[in-house]
Amino acid sequence: MNTEEQAIRDLVARWHSATAAGDVDTVLGLMADDVVFLVPGQPPMKGRSSFERSLRALLTQHRIESTGEVREVEVSGSLAYCWTELNVRVVALSGGEAKVRSGSALSILRKQATGSWVLARDANLLAPTS
Amino acid sequence: MNTEEQAIRDLVARWHSATAAGDVDTVLGLMADDVVFLVPGQPPMKGRSSFERSLRALLTQHRIESTGEVREVEVSGSLAYCWTELNVRVVALSGGEAKVRSGSALSILRKQATGSWVLARDANLLAPTS
Repeated sequence: MNTEEQAIRDLVARWHSATAAGDVDTVLGLMADDVVFLVPGQPPMKGRSSFERSLRALLTQHRIESTGEVREVEVSGSLAYCWTELNVRVVALSGGEAKVRSGSALSILRKQATGSWVLARDANLLAPTS
Repeated sequence: MNTEEQAIRDLVARWHSATAAGDVDTVLGLMADDVVFLVPGQPPMKGRSSFERSLRALLTQHRIESTGEVREVEVSGSLAYCWTELNVRVVALSGGEAKVRSGSALSILRKQATGSWVLARDANLLAPTS
């Protein structure tokens, strides 16, 4: 595994740990300013600030526990993609049953001038699990 | 627009026209042998032959009418991604109301040794429209 691929796997791991810790600033640092999130049945969510509003609103009453298995990373120059299989539990701080979603995500990453990688486009295919 | 981006836009256009014409062989020629299709709530569909079985089975009793708007193409070396907004109508040959799905697709393309591009990974976020 080369260093670029390892850097992208590290980004995915930091994303999970920072989300679980409610560390929104760290998560925001892992994405491009013009990031686009695609999910089924909803219009594209564009921009880091849109994501921030949505995540902060969710975290006021929930915590997020996520695990993921990176199935594949491929890098070419300043562009890469990453395919992950994810399991996400959204747990209400007030108690009750967690909402669990699982499935694939296909992410596009971009290498910045600084040499670090950021999430640029994300297709989230997670569906509720029974 | 550079020639690589134009080649990828042409691939998308050929995909729609060949699918509508029921020309399965042409569609199969637009994807890598190890292609992976990701959709919500189902396990990944791996390989050109799996796609072929599925498409041929569907086309025995339906025709597919699809339109798409390419929102973005980005190329780096031998790797590219393409974000499209799609509208797909699956019409039963026996008549009746069409099933319509719309939404985003995020696709990874790979440049072959021959210089032509093929679809390598595809995240299909289409959802039923009311």
